[in-house]
Amino acid sequence: MSDQSVTIEGATCAPPLPHNEQIVMGHGAGGRMSHQLIQKAFLPAFDNPALRAGDDAASLESNLHHAQRLAISTDAHVVTPLFFPGGDIGRLAVCGTVNDVAMLGAKPLYLTAGFILEEGLPMETLQRVIASMKSAAEEAGVQIVAGDTKVVQKGKADGLYITTAGVGVVRAGAKIGGAQAKADDVVILSGSLGDHGIAVLGARGELGFQSAIQSDVAPLNHLIEAMLDASNNIHVLRDPTRGGLATTLNEIATQSNVGILLDETALPIRPEVGAACEMLGFDPLYIANEGKLVAMVAREDAESVLKAMQATRYGEDACIVGEVTDAPRGRVLLKTALGSTRVVDMLSGEMLPRIC
Amino acid sequence: MSDQSVTIEGATCAPPLPHNEQIVMGHGAGGRMSHQLIQKAFLPAFDNPALRAGDDAASLESNLHHAQRLAISTDAHVVTPLFFPGGDIGRLAVCGTVNDVAMLGAKPLYLTAGFILEEGLPMETLQRVIASMKSAAEEAGVQIVAGDTKVVQKGKADGLYITTAGVGVVRAGAKIGGAQAKADDVVILSGSLGDHGIAVLGARGELGFQSAIQSDVAPLNHLIEAMLDASNNIHVLRDPTRGGLATTLNEIATQSNVGILLDETALPIRPEVGAACEMLGFDPLYIANEGKLVAMVAREDAESVLKAMQATRYGEDACIVGEVTDAPRGRVLLKTALGSTRVVDMLSGEMLPRIC
Repeated sequence: MSDQSVTIEGATCAPPLPHNEQIVMGHGAGGRMSHQLIQKAFLPAFDNPALRAGDDAASLESNLHHAQRLAISTDAHVVTPLFFPGGDIGRLAVCGTVNDVAMLGAKPLYLTAGFILEEGLPMETLQRVIASMKSAAEEAGVQIVAGDTKVVQKGKADGLYITTAGVGVVRAGAKIGGAQAKADDVVILSGSLGDHGIAVLGARGELGFQSAIQSDVAPLNHLIEAMLDASNNIHVLRDPTRGGLATTLNEIATQSNVGILLDETALPIRPEVGAACEMLGFDPLYIANEGKLVAMVAREDAESVLKAMQATRYGEDACIVGEVTDAPRGRVLLKTALGSTRVVDMLSGEMLPRIC
Repeated sequence: MSDQSVTIEGATCAPPLPHNEQIVMGHGAGGRMSHQLIQKAFLPAFDNPALRAGDDAASLESNLHHAQRLAISTDAHVVTPLFFPGGDIGRLAVCGTVNDVAMLGAKPLYLTAGFILEEGLPMETLQRVIASMKSAAEEAGVQIVAGDTKVVQKGKADGLYITTAGVGVVRAGAKIGGAQAKADDVVILSGSLGDHGIAVLGARGELGFQSAIQSDVAPLNHLIEAMLDASNNIHVLRDPTRGGLATTLNEIATQSNVGILLDETALPIRPEVGAACEMLGFDPLYIANEGKLVAMVAREDAESVLKAMQATRYGEDACIVGEVTDAPRGRVLLKTALGSTRVVDMLSGEMLPRIC
């Protein structure tokens, strides 16, 4: 989970967590508040090298064969509504974890799924979700090998929640992670920004107008395989989910201690998404994506990686959106369409609750 | 999860799942209704050999080294109240998954934890739960290597839910599973029955009297290691959680196509638990345990396994409680204290909701 990247932030930056504080929605939004929660509450307790690495999945010794490593990840899914244009909580639960495992340069093999069902949930709803998980798992080529089902009283959940965990095997020699970005790397984005968040908002009827925007939720492991086949110089892979591209890039800039310079004119944003964001006062850089990745790639391999991406289903619109710089370290800058440069900060607190 | 054992039941036994049916509490109780839900809804979609095996964890090829296998499991935890005598949701979340992985004869190595937090949860509550998870993980010797946190609006959860997943490595040569019980095996139980369920009920104030009963929630992996060191002829290991020993043994009898004969006078039940059950009309055979295991062991090794168990912290009270028989296949029988014999069926529907 991208949450983990907070590990790298200096412990001095965040105020201490007051003991009488309560959980608020912003703690789950994937931005600065989420990071502080993890840094202050989870990490001091569970501290270990894999967690400290701060990537979307943990890279681990397998204890099986010295040359290979396991990648393990988990994601809890609480989206509302359960069904939205382009996807549903089942597809989200499979793709979210498949992607987190794959972002470490690993081949996802096995998933587990823990269901928390609300009493009164129509069986037909559950069966639609299961069918969607089956189809997403088949598309990704993973097996759902263990599961658990609990039922809570009416009013103690919101239909159903699904927590998936995934296990994969890291490709031999791959050394991919949020801390591996290097100055002069090229920043590649696999496609348009903001589709998922806006599609979910539309499904809630909160846009105030009809919208044809579909969520991009998709398994990206095959796209990543194509990229890894094309280059041995991919340094970072990350999916900009909760908190959007802005938050993900801030995490990477901090983990790798580099600067990142984005080119606003290069950012692919669908006109409908751009229009919705403008009307609602949202910045697409902070909207969640569920079928996109950002990669930091050595400049000499950028073209071949781009070509490999564009040849795949979920990388057709891949493009270069920026570069990694020496300075300012830990900062993300945006060269605007007007030629000025502004700082792009991490999402602070809550923007869109319950979107993934 | 023990849920999976339904795989083995004939598809003809259960009525089809009506499409207009709703989820009720009984679907989460771990008995026959849970089994039917899994058999009818989950298995047809996710079908694969590991899931079909019907054990508490999935045994999988690691793709790493042909000689060794991975064990993977998951459990969602929704207990109410969050804290109870002898434990809390955090200790439960760690031990439940550690135990499921270990029951396959595997050494648990890594856990993931997905948190669903209710808006307004006191930070202090979360921190107590995290501290408890840390302590349980240390006791078990596992690392929590990946996590995720989501926040849902007030009233859309019950404080917090935790879904853990675990990965372990199966001991070389171990062939342990619910389908491996053999006629003439001895049935060994690691300690007293019903402590967890009654402790949780007491914490809810539903006993109607003060009780000193503590939950038995504990990691059993070190106990299992001692057993495996003592014998190569351990055929089944299973923790009788939701649905109790009766349900677990019915699962095993079906999976292994054997009979199981219990000796009522041999069943270890604490006087306080027995008294509580009597007053409330519960049968301790159906009450959940969270720190007990039942084993089917070749008769010639029973004594050495028993001795190894009794030398460990969580196996002190281990004893022989029955045997595996040729017939009646798929049935569990109880020789009562009065000398008669009765059928012990699987838990049907709901008994104690939200206990693990």
